[in-house]
Amino acid sequence: MNDSVKITEDERPRARDIGIHIGVFSPGKYNAITDVKGVLVGHCTLIQGHGPLTPGKGPIRTGVTAILPHDGNMFKQKVPAASFVFNGFGKSIGLHQVNELGNLETPILLTNTLNAPIVADALIEWMMKENPEIGIDTCTVNPVVGEINDGFLNDIQGRHVKKEHVFEALTTAQSGQIKEGAVGAGTGSSCMGWKSGIGTSSRVLPQDLGGFTVGVLVLTNFDGLLTVNGAPVGRKLGHIPFKDPGGSVMVITATDAPLYQRHLLRVAKRAVLGLARTGFYGSNGSGDFFIAFSTATTIPHEPTDVTLQGVAMTNDALSSLFLATVETTEEAVINSILKAETTVGRDGNISEAVDIQKLVRILRDYSIE
Amino acid sequence: MNDSVKITEDERPRARDIGIHIGVFSPGKYNAITDVKGVLVGHCTLIQGHGPLTPGKGPIRTGVTAILPHDGNMFKQKVPAASFVFNGFGKSIGLHQVNELGNLETPILLTNTLNAPIVADALIEWMMKENPEIGIDTCTVNPVVGEINDGFLNDIQGRHVKKEHVFEALTTAQSGQIKEGAVGAGTGSSCMGWKSGIGTSSRVLPQDLGGFTVGVLVLTNFDGLLTVNGAPVGRKLGHIPFKDPGGSVMVITATDAPLYQRHLLRVAKRAVLGLARTGFYGSNGSGDFFIAFSTATTIPHEPTDVTLQGVAMTNDALSSLFLATVETTEEAVINSILKAETTVGRDGNISEAVDIQKLVRILRDYSIE
Amino acid sequence: MNDSVKITEDERPRARDIGIHIGVFSPGKYNAITDVKGVLVGHCTLIQGHGPLTPGKGPIRTGVTAILPHDGNMFKQKVPAASFVFNGFGKSIGLHQVNELGNLETPILLTNTLNAPIVADALIEWMMKENPEIGIDTCTVNPVVGEINDGFLNDIQGRHVKKEHVFEALTTAQSGQIKEGAVGAGTGSSCMGWKSGIGTSSRVLPQDLGGFTVGVLVLTNFDGLLTVNGAPVGRKLGHIPFKDPGGSVMVITATDAPLYQRHLLRVAKRAVLGLARTGFYGSNGSGDFFIAFSTATTIPHEPTDVTLQGVAMTNDALSSLFLATVETTEEAVINSILKAETTVGRDGNISEAVDIQKLVRILRDYSIE
Amino acid sequence: MNDSVKITEDERPRARDIGIHIGVFSPGKYNAITDVKGVLVGHCTLIQGHGPLTPGKGPIRTGVTAILPHDGNMFKQKVPAASFVFNGFGKSIGLHQVNELGNLETPILLTNTLNAPIVADALIEWMMKENPEIGIDTCTVNPVVGEINDGFLNDIQGRHVKKEHVFEALTTAQSGQIKEGAVGAGTGSSCMGWKSGIGTSSRVLPQDLGGFTVGVLVLTNFDGLLTVNGAPVGRKLGHIPFKDPGGSVMVITATDAPLYQRHLLRVAKRAVLGLARTGFYGSNGSGDFFIAFSTATTIPHEPTDVTLQGVAMTNDALSSLFLATVETTEEAVINSILKAETTVGRDGNISEAVDIQKLVRILRDYSIE
Repeated sequence: MNDSVKITEDERPRARDIGIHIGVFSPGKYNAITDVKGVLVGHCTLIQGHGPLTPGKGPIRTGVTAILPHDGNMFKQKVPAASFVFNGFGKSIGLHQVNELGNLETPILLTNTLNAPIVADALIEWMMKENPEIGIDTCTVNPVVGEINDGFLNDIQGRHVKKEHVFEALTTAQSGQIKEGAVGAGTGSSCMGWKSGIGTSSRVLPQDLGGFTVGVLVLTNFDGLLTVNGAPVGRKLGHIPFKDPGGSVMVITATDAPLYQRHLLRVAKRAVLGLARTGFYGSNGSGDFFIAFSTATTIPHEPTDVTLQGVAMTNDALSSLFLATVETTEEAVINSILKAETTVGRDGNISEAVDIQKLVRILRDYSIE
Repeated sequence: MNDSVKITEDERPRARDIGIHIGVFSPGKYNAITDVKGVLVGHCTLIQGHGPLTPGKGPIRTGVTAILPHDGNMFKQKVPAASFVFNGFGKSIGLHQVNELGNLETPILLTNTLNAPIVADALIEWMMKENPEIGIDTCTVNPVVGEINDGFLNDIQGRHVKKEHVFEALTTAQSGQIKEGAVGAGTGSSCMGWKSGIGTSSRVLPQDLGGFTVGVLVLTNFDGLLTVNGAPVGRKLGHIPFKDPGGSVMVITATDAPLYQRHLLRVAKRAVLGLARTGFYGSNGSGDFFIAFSTATTIPHEPTDVTLQGVAMTNDALSSLFLATVETTEEAVINSILKAETTVGRDGNISEAVDIQKLVRILRDYSIE
Repeated sequence: MNDSVKITEDERPRARDIGIHIGVFSPGKYNAITDVKGVLVGHCTLIQGHGPLTPGKGPIRTGVTAILPHDGNMFKQKVPAASFVFNGFGKSIGLHQVNELGNLETPILLTNTLNAPIVADALIEWMMKENPEIGIDTCTVNPVVGEINDGFLNDIQGRHVKKEHVFEALTTAQSGQIKEGAVGAGTGSSCMGWKSGIGTSSRVLPQDLGGFTVGVLVLTNFDGLLTVNGAPVGRKLGHIPFKDPGGSVMVITATDAPLYQRHLLRVAKRAVLGLARTGFYGSNGSGDFFIAFSTATTIPHEPTDVTLQGVAMTNDALSSLFLATVETTEEAVINSILKAETTVGRDGNISEAVDIQKLVRILRDYSIE
Repeated sequence: MNDSVKITEDERPRARDIGIHIGVFSPGKYNAITDVKGVLVGHCTLIQGHGPLTPGKGPIRTGVTAILPHDGNMFKQKVPAASFVFNGFGKSIGLHQVNELGNLETPILLTNTLNAPIVADALIEWMMKENPEIGIDTCTVNPVVGEINDGFLNDIQGRHVKKEHVFEALTTAQSGQIKEGAVGAGTGSSCMGWKSGIGTSSRVLPQDLGGFTVGVLVLTNFDGLLTVNGAPVGRKLGHIPFKDPGGSVMVITATDAPLYQRHLLRVAKRAVLGLARTGFYGSNGSGDFFIAFSTATTIPHEPTDVTLQGVAMTNDALSSLFLATVETTEEAVINSILKAETTVGRDGNISEAVDIQKLVRILRDYSIE
């Protein structure tokens, strides 16, 4: 634990900045999903208006987050992918096809629940621009959109995310460091009693385990009893479950390990274990959706032969990838809460940022590091 | 077989009109999904323009079909429901939640693949009008939309289905006789080499098997070798598979039998057997989605207690319901083809109606009745 | 239809012997699952005693059928595989692991329902003989066993299949022509009102579709209304459903096409469409389990690296494989009934063979070929 | 934390005995699955021989554990149930039918992996004794058996569990206090580097949340990094993952809350979250199977009508049940390790009990209570 850490308003710490070291593997350079080479992340954050809710007018506290497996043409060069649904009480779009065909052919977009269709429509338009053959004959495209409910802070009925916001998230996506907390699709979310949003983390496996990188991006909005690397922060600070057992969570896992859909489904599933370690208990209202993809190869839209060469990890070798996924997800959730600033939304509803000083004190009491 | 049947252009026959009797049970009054008391069906058909495709302009050959389990407030009075995915290569929306919560809280809308998100958004708006609490706090709504790809005839890139078309399908929905063939979401579809669209059929179980009614509505757009009650019509008329193995099919099964989600999932699955009997083989490109619901009870949005009384058929009693679902689906597919008129679409593409005279002749050759 | 076919008691015909040509593709040399190079099939048939049932004593009408993907050490050289459950009302063993790990590491054994555990235990013993490392440290083996209920003819309580019978089916397995009908695990089964048992068929795809072979072996014991290539044989001969809606069916699909688990799951599913075309409707009591495997490659038990090279068909190319699976399954079911001889079992219960002459007459009436 | 706790060899503590209080709800009287009224648990423990492994001879460190939902005739009076598979790399038997029919019709038996078929066969025999109609006509029985791999300590090839051991576990099953640790099916198991075995715990919901009881029984044999109510015990004591990433875990959840299969599936799933909080990461080799059942009602084998009345919790009310399942599972895992004594098995392999004094010291260091 680093005692001297400075908590300023404009720069809230990530977990490792305050000495929280989760798990046994080491993070990548940015400790972010973008440590998986080629992956890009972009946000469009919508904040507008204050005071009482006027449905359709605001206040607005929402946004879009885009995760791009690579910066090429995703439709022409798809990536192996899988999806897992832990709790289907949610409105994610496009997950059936991901499992059936074993690939992802668009970026993944995250937004709020009532905006999911509009964002999917914008994504179709985006894809058609690059790929005019979509919609001709039997050629279609499968937009993949995840969502959470930000109705506590946001005028969700207004469905304020428009096409241009989606395009902004897509065009501004970049590699390297990622903005976390109350940004993009996380602008209006809350988690286990605190303001939350987008979080990310990564792990690099030792060379003898394959040397692969795993990166996770989460959008957290779920109920639970916050636990930080074992410390019962939620209980100590009086944020207990059931005040608002709605929520939802999206977890996107990326890796450069060569994997097919069957392997990626197994990876996607493990993320739920990382959630559990932070206090998640899968409340009825929490739609919990997981997507995993591999950047190790691309799958051509129009193969030139009836067969395709491939390579994938063996079953035995997956265990280390699984553990990396668990601990990366856990850390990403903590980051999504640490980085999020207090947000006042519609009707003056307040989602408070976790108090870093108090949190650090609890961690110290519990000798957590 | 009824020899004297008259085939006129403006009134194509249904299967039973030309003596085709499928299965062992008897149909209800209208031989339609609307024989399940309370169920309503509405269409909005969009036909506009001719000639070469100008993406975004037309020609337009598409639409919307709405299936309402009852004419009340679906959000406040949900119905037990389940969904089954045989081939996930499709873009249906809302199916995860149906299985997780075991209910349907909106009408089911059918449309074309690239319009699915727009239609889902319109359905959200429709639901919010009646239920202003949607979007407040944790309250959301799960729009259920199915789709097929009508890109052979329609300017699918144009996404010409708008909010008002969705509302029209919803407000004009009615009980009793249903328009079949090239209407609503079936305006631009083709099936096993012929023009197809919406089809429906029903069965009433004998009293000693419970006396329940099963109704099916299909939207057919799949590849296969058309078989009519056993007769190899596709082979005889030279419409063989693989010319265009895309497609998709949606099957909606309604029943007044009291069933929970587990039972309804089993019912929904059986519909795929009815498809198979018509020549369906589940081609790679065919996204095959099934939804079943029961009208026997409604589930309140805000229950007054932590438990809810229920009633459901026993496992043993389900077999007759399964067989009824199989044969109803088979007949609905045949109706969807028989009733569909030849349609000329974008770029002069023609989807020809099956020739009733030739069909009758083949059936006679094969002694099919 | 071949008019001059001779039906003798000791050599009942297969479908093609009496002019029934199902589907569009051509069968392989033996029109059997063994047309997939390397696949072996063995039976052990148990027939003993007559008259009243004395549980534990007999009469016995049961057996074991073994399907071996190759004649090597299956544990050391596993094959890619998948399983699909259409109706889980059955007692098959080992299917979870097949999907999780994507492979099959033992032969597949079929038997009667109450014998499934004994047969699984015998298979474990068989595997340990060849592979003494099984059971040491974390090394285990996953025996795969399917079953049907032959209690109408057989003293099923007696669980008369013993270890030596399992070994006999395994050691006598061979390539080439397969015994069908009332043999092995099919000794005591009935299907849609007639004696049935084991059936098989195959298809070879044209070279431009990949030239792969698909072979199916079925063990049929289900309820339905027998339909032979479209002809309503069940209805014409008065064998209607619901007399005994129990049953079950096992379908094993083998192919030399290179496929991973995700592809094989899709193949396995298509077999249910072939069943549907014969009259199957998925009755409550019918446990319907499907396994598909590929012989194109083997997966080493102890890989030497963390990754493994692979090759698989593209999604688009699968459609022809799907259609081949549908029609092969349909033909295998018909063979399982045609080849089965009338069998008298416990308490004098009789399961009658279908009358070939009557069947041929109906086919002729319906111009079915 | 209770400082004065006495740790004696013959009476190892449960979690609460040493001041570990997991979660927010309170346990029932015995803090055991048997707090769910009617539930019985029985063990048969097999310990025989020492020294080098002689496959087929020993040493033997294995057993059977039986969980009975009620003490009546389970076949005649089934209970609502569901099963969930997190990692299918295991050999559990009977889970498909549980989900398809929504019920459990036998006790649940746990044993070692290679004994699963033998135990299933013994369970069939046990059920037939009480129910001679099993095996007559279409009547069968679905034995449910879970397993873990105890090959590190036990001569697993010997398959030493016999029929009489199964019957002993069944006939000695009782309500009230349960033996935990290295007993029954847990005799030879290890978990996260320590001796483990059977563990149990329970929670009683407050009356305003329904007042229902949830009880969990676990059989732990999985890899991970032991975490005790947040304290990193595994890391502190140097027991890190990957030394033996095989394993497996079975979790049985019982409740008196009225639930159908759909609800029970959701409950069963939540148990995996409790595992995660103890250090579980779902390693490749860990077959993770979950069964949940409700004792609130029984389902007659031969219903007298085509429908059956029911009652179930509403979706909204399930959240508290989910949280209770999570924390009960977590505590049951800790109990399974705390209670297990050091065991020396085949070839002198030692699975050491966790050192209670050291554990208590770590908990104190981490202020865990």
